[in-house]
Amino acid sequence: MIPSLIAHIGKFSSIDAEKVGVLESYFEYRTYKKKELLLQEGQRCNEKFFIVKGCVNLYYLKQNGLEQTTDFALENWWISDFMAFQTGSRSQFSIKATETTNVLCITADGQRELLKKVPELNAYFHLVFQKAYAASQIRFRLLSEFSKEELYRQFVQLFPEFIQRVPQYLLASFLGFTPEYLSEIRKKYLS
Amino acid sequence: MIPSLIAHIGKFSSIDAEKVGVLESYFEYRTYKKKELLLQEGQRCNEKFFIVKGCVNLYYLKQNGLEQTTDFALENWWISDFMAFQTGSRSQFSIKATETTNVLCITADGQRELLKKVPELNAYFHLVFQKAYAASQIRFRLLSEFSKEELYRQFVQLFPEFIQRVPQYLLASFLGFTPEYLSEIRKKYLS
Repeated sequence: MIPSLIAHIGKFSSIDAEKVGVLESYFEYRTYKKKELLLQEGQRCNEKFFIVKGCVNLYYLKQNGLEQTTDFALENWWISDFMAFQTGSRSQFSIKATETTNVLCITADGQRELLKKVPELNAYFHLVFQKAYAASQIRFRLLSEFSKEELYRQFVQLFPEFIQRVPQYLLASFLGFTPEYLSEIRKKYLS
Repeated sequence: MIPSLIAHIGKFSSIDAEKVGVLESYFEYRTYKKKELLLQEGQRCNEKFFIVKGCVNLYYLKQNGLEQTTDFALENWWISDFMAFQTGSRSQFSIKATETTNVLCITADGQRELLKKVPELNAYFHLVFQKAYAASQIRFRLLSEFSKEELYRQFVQLFPEFIQRVPQYLLASFLGFTPEYLSEIRKKYLS
């Protein structure tokens, strides 16, 4: 649980050993079953999640009632509707477990308190979010640079484990494919 | 110059008055003429920029030699190739002034030193990058939710000043239009 977060913090910055207990007291450890919701679109979002084990998808409901996945999070990733989390507005996304998923969860109020007591965590979050934003910059480039089929090929090369792990109908949604089209280009690519 | 950055910091967190001088010593104030480059794709990127006045676009060179704009930055925004800035790798983007632009510039090494001396700035950068990432989450939703023409309409409603300000051929590139198509839907939308 908390050791995986401490290890992740250690990759970006550091935290004094005596502050670990303070940190721990602000997080709730939860397990979500496959298809269970961590966050529901339209509700206030006052929690963010660190994935200890498992995988979740971030999606919104399209006008035709289908769930459109726009992101995933695996181990050691933070996930939330961060605009809703930062401003207290209603969430524009839902988050659902794609497999049994263990998370560490902190509320917005909890985080404000924690950051007063352990301000050095800001250095960690600064680098985590700068990197997440940097990855978005690259994703916007990939989206404009490649056709959908080339995008899939890029993804297979860049994130082979991710492709294996994520349910194929969600991967299709994420890439903007129909599941049938994804199945077709997978066959083509494997042959 | 520095007062605009101090004011921006004040919107997210705070900095002690006696630290302002330290902060100032790490920033270089620069003016770029219209079409001048702040960063060139393929070079090491060891600077990030706070826009004091003006506007820049972030773009990469497509295989056909055209410049594909993927982002803009206006007053009070930070811009860089943040992956290259964080990791020291070569930049995947260029940044160019779309009008005369005044920036405050800090190097990666300078920032590391500054954050040791003024660690409370991490709280500011944490919130700035969380918000930038949050805006990316929403942009990914808009990109998948709307046709290109609807996207333009969304942009006009959400960012009317931005639409007025940015050169139309760059706006067209950003939205994935030809300049001709943008001109067509502008006429349609204005009539």
